[in-house]
Amino acid sequence: MAAGPFDNELTRGLLGGRAEVRDLFTAQADVAVALKFESSLAVAEGAAGVIPAGHAEAIVESLKGFAADFASLESAAARDGVYVPELVRQLRAHVGGEAGQYVHFGATSQDVVDTSLILRLCHAVELFSSDIDRTFGQLDRLQTGFGGRQLMGVTRMQDALPISVSDRLRAWRMPLERHQARLEELKLRLLVVQFGGAVGTLDRLGGKGEAVARRLAAELGLGLPNGQWHAQRDAIAEFASWLSLLTGSLGKLGQDIALMALRGGEIELAGGGGSSAMPHKQNPVDAEALVTLARFNAVQLSGMHQALVHEQERSGAAWSLEWMILPQMVMATSAALVRAGDLLSNVKSLGRGAE
Amino acid sequence: MAAGPFDNELTRGLLGGRAEVRDLFTAQADVAVALKFESSLAVAEGAAGVIPAGHAEAIVESLKGFAADFASLESAAARDGVYVPELVRQLRAHVGGEAGQYVHFGATSQDVVDTSLILRLCHAVELFSSDIDRTFGQLDRLQTGFGGRQLMGVTRMQDALPISVSDRLRAWRMPLERHQARLEELKLRLLVVQFGGAVGTLDRLGGKGEAVARRLAAELGLGLPNGQWHAQRDAIAEFASWLSLLTGSLGKLGQDIALMALRGGEIELAGGGGSSAMPHKQNPVDAEALVTLARFNAVQLSGMHQALVHEQERSGAAWSLEWMILPQMVMATSAALVRAGDLLSNVKSLGRGAE
Amino acid sequence: MAAGPFDNELTRGLLGGRAEVRDLFTAQADVAVALKFESSLAVAEGAAGVIPAGHAEAIVESLKGFAADFASLESAAARDGVYVPELVRQLRAHVGGEAGQYVHFGATSQDVVDTSLILRLCHAVELFSSDIDRTFGQLDRLQTGFGGRQLMGVTRMQDALPISVSDRLRAWRMPLERHQARLEELKLRLLVVQFGGAVGTLDRLGGKGEAVARRLAAELGLGLPNGQWHAQRDAIAEFASWLSLLTGSLGKLGQDIALMALRGGEIELAGGGGSSAMPHKQNPVDAEALVTLARFNAVQLSGMHQALVHEQERSGAAWSLEWMILPQMVMATSAALVRAGDLLSNVKSLGRGAE
Amino acid sequence: MAAGPFDNELTRGLLGGRAEVRDLFTAQADVAVALKFESSLAVAEGAAGVIPAGHAEAIVESLKGFAADFASLESAAARDGVYVPELVRQLRAHVGGEAGQYVHFGATSQDVVDTSLILRLCHAVELFSSDIDRTFGQLDRLQTGFGGRQLMGVTRMQDALPISVSDRLRAWRMPLERHQARLEELKLRLLVVQFGGAVGTLDRLGGKGEAVARRLAAELGLGLPNGQWHAQRDAIAEFASWLSLLTGSLGKLGQDIALMALRGGEIELAGGGGSSAMPHKQNPVDAEALVTLARFNAVQLSGMHQALVHEQERSGAAWSLEWMILPQMVMATSAALVRAGDLLSNVKSLGRGAE
Repeated sequence: MAAGPFDNELTRGLLGGRAEVRDLFTAQADVAVALKFESSLAVAEGAAGVIPAGHAEAIVESLKGFAADFASLESAAARDGVYVPELVRQLRAHVGGEAGQYVHFGATSQDVVDTSLILRLCHAVELFSSDIDRTFGQLDRLQTGFGGRQLMGVTRMQDALPISVSDRLRAWRMPLERHQARLEELKLRLLVVQFGGAVGTLDRLGGKGEAVARRLAAELGLGLPNGQWHAQRDAIAEFASWLSLLTGSLGKLGQDIALMALRGGEIELAGGGGSSAMPHKQNPVDAEALVTLARFNAVQLSGMHQALVHEQERSGAAWSLEWMILPQMVMATSAALVRAGDLLSNVKSLGRGAE
Repeated sequence: MAAGPFDNELTRGLLGGRAEVRDLFTAQADVAVALKFESSLAVAEGAAGVIPAGHAEAIVESLKGFAADFASLESAAARDGVYVPELVRQLRAHVGGEAGQYVHFGATSQDVVDTSLILRLCHAVELFSSDIDRTFGQLDRLQTGFGGRQLMGVTRMQDALPISVSDRLRAWRMPLERHQARLEELKLRLLVVQFGGAVGTLDRLGGKGEAVARRLAAELGLGLPNGQWHAQRDAIAEFASWLSLLTGSLGKLGQDIALMALRGGEIELAGGGGSSAMPHKQNPVDAEALVTLARFNAVQLSGMHQALVHEQERSGAAWSLEWMILPQMVMATSAALVRAGDLLSNVKSLGRGAE
Repeated sequence: MAAGPFDNELTRGLLGGRAEVRDLFTAQADVAVALKFESSLAVAEGAAGVIPAGHAEAIVESLKGFAADFASLESAAARDGVYVPELVRQLRAHVGGEAGQYVHFGATSQDVVDTSLILRLCHAVELFSSDIDRTFGQLDRLQTGFGGRQLMGVTRMQDALPISVSDRLRAWRMPLERHQARLEELKLRLLVVQFGGAVGTLDRLGGKGEAVARRLAAELGLGLPNGQWHAQRDAIAEFASWLSLLTGSLGKLGQDIALMALRGGEIELAGGGGSSAMPHKQNPVDAEALVTLARFNAVQLSGMHQALVHEQERSGAAWSLEWMILPQMVMATSAALVRAGDLLSNVKSLGRGAE
Repeated sequence: MAAGPFDNELTRGLLGGRAEVRDLFTAQADVAVALKFESSLAVAEGAAGVIPAGHAEAIVESLKGFAADFASLESAAARDGVYVPELVRQLRAHVGGEAGQYVHFGATSQDVVDTSLILRLCHAVELFSSDIDRTFGQLDRLQTGFGGRQLMGVTRMQDALPISVSDRLRAWRMPLERHQARLEELKLRLLVVQFGGAVGTLDRLGGKGEAVARRLAAELGLGLPNGQWHAQRDAIAEFASWLSLLTGSLGKLGQDIALMALRGGEIELAGGGGSSAMPHKQNPVDAEALVTLARFNAVQLSGMHQALVHEQERSGAAWSLEWMILPQMVMATSAALVRAGDLLSNVKSLGRGAE
């Protein structure tokens, strides 16, 4: 019984994106990756001699059998503003003994939450990249089938001069190619570990902070940033911008197809949506959804940039705003990619005239 | 395993609002109210002689025992862009016979979806109003306890001149009083039935449209608007504005308290949040959450106003954008009211000097 | 040589609104109304015996001949964050002597700036109200001329069922009628004086604050609020919401007409825009501009609601954000009303079939 | 008598940025660069044999003496939705004869407007880059003077653990370094010519379109894109995102300093703003302005991403929305850089304790 649009059964099929992407943002996924962080931290700190090697091994071994008490996490998160203090309490109790006290050594909640997010984003961007490639495949199919046909070029909502189907396919494709290039650039800034301790100084690591961070990043398959970024949210906001660039480009594709569907004669779509009052209709539902998702992300992006004003060493207010928005943008982007793929695969004919 | 911030167990305790409000936006609640719409429509159409009275009774009776197939609703909503066509199919099959064909007679999907939303908002605004009253109670308590004490008035982030605790309590309270007045005004525009049929003309009602609408509104306990509003979204956007006004005022309260907590000396708070790295800390988590929720709703509001550009007789794109945003704004507002109540009840002392 | 879109000669004709509205937001208009505030304050304080009656008269008389040094206001505003300290310095020097020291007595910069804004908004809302009435006149003309004709009702970007021209005119008109009603409601909250002194306590008025405020409001033709509102920005944000509701409704009208113009056959427009490359085109420029202005205000609205988080007794950050946004929203609203009037007056034919 | 916040004399000193940047967005600057486009186009088309070489020379020579009639541009832009058709008319009349008819040959309004924008952005980004370098200089000065001192690290609005001044300087600096890197990446996508003709097909260039585009780009000192981008606005929206990333990072710096100024003891600022009511105050006006400008750009960014839904071959609605917003974002960014430079140069002391 979920209430948000990405979970509610009446909307998630249309607007919710891949289940695989949604699953990244469940409490279960977050905690599972948090455990991976805590284990890897123990490994890194054991190797550096920050914590006793035996205790590190004990932690790693013990955490394999840990199952979180989610009800306690929920109530503690409401009180503490973040679930990590309670999770660490549970983990320490689970590991027990002296080793237990070394769980999460020198780290802070934000190290866990931010790194867990980044690890899950690694998976999301891989999916996005392959979904974009799938879109290229569909555009190739249309180019092969209909590229030489004519369309009426439309400027300012009036017929202008004829263009080819190729011309419009190109206008849909080129931005996606640039988005792939942008993704490669920003991944270097985004997919990095966060490890700073209470105020970003790794005050309890006694000079071994960098060594631990390097090993921790390697364990997790992440890059090593130039220092902490807990209060520097630019890579997160840059990624949000990328998400909205992508959905915006797909929104243009959707709007173009919706307008062609409105006018008729230049596009034939299979699989349109039915109506409860008018059985004759075939609504371009996927095309409309692309516009919805583009506008949704364009709205949300503003909030991610408001969150750049992240005061001092940690802003609960700005950070929580990211929590409310970024997962939604990721899911909306997945939805747009799914909808675009479906929409393009349903194009049965494009343009006028024989091949 | 829910992914959105209002459902995810790691965030909903802090940012999710009352369970009672969240429950309004589940698929189950939506469909339950949709059934109420379809039953009431049968009553109204039976009474007006639009459908045979016996069939109306049969529909009402039969729907009492209906249980929706949510899996089919989900997949159909993804295809049709709205769940109603499939729901109507299920309802007609459930009622069966000739009577079944009269389910949803002359109505369209949007009549169901919009009216279901409005009926659920009726409940939400009642809860909000009583939550605001609860806040007044807390402010009264602080006024009684500390109103006569002094605070340093702060302008432009610098100490200015002393004020009384009363002065600041008043700055928190007055906007809330005005919000109550605004709510009374807008309820007359918002809490009205939507009934228009396929394109808003009640084309199948044969001149009895207005009579049916009046009875339908009465059955549902809603007002009767001056005509259809399916493509006129101003009352919805006005309500969204009200939600953001309310959370904005509570965000100012939260920011004020967070700043007092930062400076120390003028406020004593119980129940602050703990830290995984610094056991000595008592974080003003509720105060920060109020800022988060204010900024969240200020962001979302933009999307609800983008959705005013609702083209022609029904815009799938603009309408779906409302679905993605408005429920979240309602839940965020509930969260802000809960957080404000908790925060104020945790104020143990305010101002300087003896009473 | 102005750079903003409402001043730049290449954009203000299209998007800038009435010159009369733009003129309200010039430095000259702001200062002229600020002088009115300072004179009226002297009158009110003289009458209440807060300042010597003779000095009050001297101030009023002397200010009639005052001409501000705008270059100094500009550089001082950059330093002080607000122009009023320098204006008061200029005024005191201009009045001179002992009387000069009583200029602005007990007031603060925000009293001047906020009240000056409100006085200018009084004028803007009168213009808006009469522009809305002008739109009603145009809609009446279309109703008389074409109301009985048919249009194809379009839902979800697909032909649905026929409607009458009346039906669509009604969908454009009803929101505007509600906006007029909303304006009457909110004016009581908005069009009120701000007078609070340094921190809102009128600390230098010695118990005569309310009497002075009452007289000041009367002198200025404004309402008297229930206390100060310098840090309570809800009426300002509510007004911004109203502006965006209005432009949103006009944006829907514009989008509808642009889509009719795209499809052809149902609307005939005079006065469309020309193209530098295609002399045959008649672009529905006004219709497009309505969509632009609706989206612009929907974007800006978010900022006005962010500014509700107005910390403590005065937030330079939140307050300045209003300065950057609200005047633009007012000008965009004027532009939308002008464009809508022009667009509707250029409709030569609407719908299909004989009268 | 300008009304917008970047031109109004009462606000532009604080929030308006460098005059050099503002001047880029005047009508005069736009038209001057448009002339450069038209001259360069004649050169390129003459060289390619698209237009007679003699006519090309005549155009170039004649345009040197052209002075636009801005009053006619203003009224024509209001009618046509863009100023270029009237400018071309004026240019053709000015050049006269047969040569005159070859002005703007094969181009369209959007080629002129978009390329003129890009050329002016070239200048803006150079200024930004050097302003960021100036900020680095100020941060270096603070590092040298105070880097070794202590500050109280603050998390979630509560004292946490001590950090060094260096730590916080680093949190301000690192994002700016990344912004410089991002700028280098996006410049390759942004700073390119737009040349497509009426519908982007260069239909009148007879196969010589690419040659002309290459020469045109070279003449203007711009890159050559992979085809037209008139309806692909991703590079523009990406640039807007960058602007908001930059102002967001500076907003964090401003918020940090404002909070330090509020608490006292850790920062000493020269040059604070004065108050009309409280002569003792020194307001951290520049710090607050940085927060304002960050929030302003975060709001505007949403509109630039809404404009990605740029339908068909040219959307008057989406394109005009860019005109209203992007210049303001550029000016706000300049203002933030100026404010940050001034603020940092006014820091007289940072941190606690001797060096």
